[in-house]
This record gives sequence, C-alpha cells and structure tokens, in this order.
Amino acid sequence: MSAAHTRKLIIEVRANEFAMRDRNPLVPWSADELAEDAAECREAGAAIYHFHPRGPDGEAAFDFESYRQPVTRIRASCDLLVYPTLGAFDRAQSAPERLAPILALAEAGQVPDIAPIDMGSTNVDRFDAARGWFTTQERIYINTHATLRHFAEQLRGAGVKPQLVCWNLPMLRCACAFIRAGLVDQPAWIYLGMSEASLAHHPGTPRGMMALVDFLPEDLGHEWTVSLNGGNLLPLASLAITLGGHVSIGIGDHPYDELGTVRNADLVRRVAALARDCGRALATPAEARRMLGMD
Amino acid sequence: MSAAHTRKLIIEVRANEFAMRDRNPLVPWSADELAEDAAECREAGAAIYHFHPRGPDGEAAFDFESYRQPVTRIRASCDLLVYPTLGAFDRAQSAPERLAPILALAEAGQVPDIAPIDMGSTNVDRFDAARGWFTTQERIYINTHATLRHFAEQLRGAGVKPQLVCWNLPMLRCACAFIRAGLVDQPAWIYLGMSEASLAHHPGTPRGMMALVDFLPEDLGHEWTVSLNGGNLLPLASLAITLGGHVSIGIGDHPYDELGTVRNADLVRRVAALARDCGRALATPAEARRMLGMD
Repeated sequence: MSAAHTRKLIIEVRANEFAMRDRNPLVPWSADELAEDAAECREAGAAIYHFHPRGPDGEAAFDFESYRQPVTRIRASCDLLVYPTLGAFDRAQSAPERLAPILALAEAGQVPDIAPIDMGSTNVDRFDAARGWFTTQERIYINTHATLRHFAEQLRGAGVKPQLVCWNLPMLRCACAFIRAGLVDQPAWIYLGMSEASLAHHPGTPRGMMALVDFLPEDLGHEWTVSLNGGNLLPLASLAITLGGHVSIGIGDHPYDELGTVRNADLVRRVAALARDCGRALATPAEARRMLGMD
Repeated sequence: MSAAHTRKLIIEVRANEFAMRDRNPLVPWSADELAEDAAECREAGAAIYHFHPRGPDGEAAFDFESYRQPVTRIRASCDLLVYPTLGAFDRAQSAPERLAPILALAEAGQVPDIAPIDMGSTNVDRFDAARGWFTTQERIYINTHATLRHFAEQLRGAGVKPQLVCWNLPMLRCACAFIRAGLVDQPAWIYLGMSEASLAHHPGTPRGMMALVDFLPEDLGHEWTVSLNGGNLLPLASLAITLGGHVSIGIGDHPYDELGTVRNADLVRRVAALARDCGRALATPAEARRMLGMD
C-alpha cells in the first residue's frame, strides 16, 4: 500500500438500500428523487451511485421499469457511475432470475457501470441489539460458488464491473479465490461491509474493520472500500482514507439522525472534508472508472 | 485475561474427523481403536476426546450403535471427557434428526459430556489450494438461528455441555449472542477453528487466529480453544497457550506427516511440552470439567 495516501479517493453513495423514512424522511425512492439526489452527490464529490429500485411506498421493486427509469434519469442528470443492486435475494430465486434486471438493462443499451456480487452464504436474520436477539430466526442468504461463478461470468460478458461484496473473512477469502482464478478482472473492486444490525458482518469498529483490511490480497490488483450498516461510518472512514481505501456511505445504510436530518450529499461533503484532512483528492467518475480498470 | 498463563491447559483430541488413512494409516475408526487411542491420549495429558463414528471402511456412520460402542469403550478405558459429533450435516436433515444420536445416548444412560453446535451457515465446498479452486461448488452448511436455539435447549435439557464452534467472526458474534441471551451457560466452551482447506474458516496463521481471539467476549464467562484443519497447529498452539487459550488437536484434522507417522498421543505429548515451555500445567479431565462449569 505504498503511496496509499496519494491515491485519489472514490466516494460511493449508498443512496437508499431498503431504508424506510421513519428515521430519515429524505431517503430517495422514485426515479426523479434518485436523479436529483445523484446530481447533488456528484456536485459534492461522489463518483459512484449505488441504489435499490423502490416502489411508491418504498417497497422493494424488481421489475425492469423500476430499474430502467432511475438508471436513465440518473444518467441524464449527472455522470456518476451507476450501480444498481441485483434482483431480490431470496432462497427460492435462481441465479439467472437474480441477475435478470442487470442483463436486461445491458440489452436495452443501459449497461450498468457496476453490479454487486455478494461473495458467500450466511444467516441474515437482523439482530436487535437492544433486545439482544434476532428479529427473525430462519433467514439464510444463499450464494453457492456455482452461483457466484455464474454472476462473475455473466457480468463480464455484459461489460459490467463487479463489486465483490465481503461482510466477513470467508467472503473476502472467496473473493480472493475468484480474482486469483481469473474469474474477476484486476484491479478488483472489493467492498468491506461492517454492520451493527447484522451478525453476518464484522462489527463497525476499528478492530472489526482491520480484521478484514489485514487480509486484503497484496499480490492482486484491487481497490477497496468500506461501509457500515446500522451505524455512523465517519470515524471508520478516516481510518480507511488514511490506509488508502475508499468510502461507501449513504442514508440507505444508516439514517445519520445523530447529525440532524441529512441528505446523501451532506454525507459526501463530510467525507470530502475528511479526505482533505488526510491529503487525498477526490476521484471524479471518469477517474474512478480508470482506477477500477473499466476503460 | 489476567493470569491467563496460570490457568491449567485443556488438551482436546480431535481423533479422526472424516480423515481417511492415505496420509496417516493410524487414524482410529473402530470402537476398539478409539478406546485404545483415547487411553494413550489420557496418559499423554489430554482431557477431552472428540471423535466421529466411522464404519469398517472409514465411512461416516450415524446409526445409534456406531455412537454407543465407542462411547462405552472409551469410558471403560479411561476417564477422558467424551465428545462425539452430531449426526451428519446435510441440507435435507432436520435439526431433530441431526441431534438424534446425542439424545439417544443420553436416554440410554451414556450422556455425552460435550457436543458441538456449529454457530452459523456458510458455503462449505473444500478448497484445493494447489488447483486454486473448489472441489465442489454447491455445498452449503445450513444452521438457522432457530436450529441453533433448538440445539442449545435440547443439549441443556440432556445435560450435555455445548462446544460453540466458530470458524469465522459471524459465528463468534452469534455464539456471543447465544451466551448473552442465556441460552448457553457460562462459562461457555468456545472453539475457534482455522483451516487451510476451507475458505469458510479463518486462515491458519497468527493473524487469522487473532482476528477471532480479538473478539472473544471479555464480559462473558468462557474458555476458548483453537484448532487447525488441513495444517500444522503446533506453531499457533504456542500462541494460544501464551494467551490463556486451550488446544484442540489431532490426526483427524491433519495427518501431521511432516512429523513422521504419528499417533494422536504423540501430538498430545507435543502440546504438553509446549505447555511446559509456557509454564502452564495440564488440566485433568476432572479439572477440565470444573473449569467448564460441568459439575
């Protein structure tokens, strides 16, 4: 990680995930809201815009139009790299079904710049820390190695850059195996996701983060970013910036009501200020594209 | 972890797992072989004997007699704490089916001292490091939180001490949730399992081990042990002994052909020597029972 601090910083917005509006009413849902939010984030210094298609009442939406409309409107409003989620995860859904909206966008001439591959299987019941127990007890997120290989091959074929999503060390070890086997191009785009609302992730502490960072593959070309679900990422963001990582943040992951009622662009501005503190310039979308080997 | 180095060391033998005899012909399979092996290990300084029932050709066996015979013979040959595995893991098997052999032993008056609870779900395809790819691509080990709760409640009801098996940080976070919720008694018996043949585990390096040890729950009563599947545990054993942990080792986990053709008792003697180097005495089975709150 020589000269890590001189590498430009990629800020990725995690715009909405599955967040409702009870704790932050500014979570963008509609295509117009997403496009307006994206343009503000671009102005504030972001390079990548990750979003989940949502219906009128905030419900998760997986039909093609729910993907197509925000993609085209975000692209009409700014040059952020567009990064939609896959189709809903569900134990009953096949790998092709989960990939269908991404491939349909590609076929329609709106190739997403980036799409996620969640690099393993795990229990995913939400953990209620106040109660000290899980809110459900039977939810498992299934991603066999055959499915992951299918995703990697199909995304490469469609010209979509995969983000290798790692919540824990087994997922990171799997990501490294995929890169090393040549199934994912270098530089790979590795996402280290902490959480305080899921025990499938590492905890959102410096130690929890370092227990992933310490295992990044020094022999493989990659860029890495950090996020925190269910908690304030900003303290960890400084650590990641110092170490040469990037930052994935948004009111989709956490309402950030401890900062008032904030928009995604407010969080991007906060991360931009942390980057200045550490002497790192911000990557434009075009620069992020080059850094991630997407040209 | 004050005075960790003065705590007596529990050596747990991992006698056979699913190991065949191609790399070490001394792997015990039959009830008589297990009983003889156990007595040697007791003499060498072990306190706990973990084994998998095996058929005449080494095949995994899950019928009641395959459990009952080694348990009764091991108990006739020595006073080691007896620790059989659960019924086979298989995605199609229900939690009650997997627990059946343990509860049947208890009902027959041969209550196992310890039984494992594998604290989560994960992909479990073996990874062939030489080829750089998985030997299968579809294997998932399913343990929902409902299943884990069922195991904890049933084992408590039967008077069997659970070993909380943790291969990675999500499994350890889950174990802590179960202890904190009162579903597992303190002191809990926490197993930290590394592997070089499975990416579901942490790597068998000091850093891989510390990325688990650093997250042990300081506020919860527990004892912890380390193992390594597919590699030589002895270098890590010294680190665990120094830090106040215990050691789980055996030719079930790794043939140890780098040391010649060794028996389980040879490995126990090696660990006993490391314990002496670090100034820790060995726990007898009766002392281990007290340390684990099993009296």
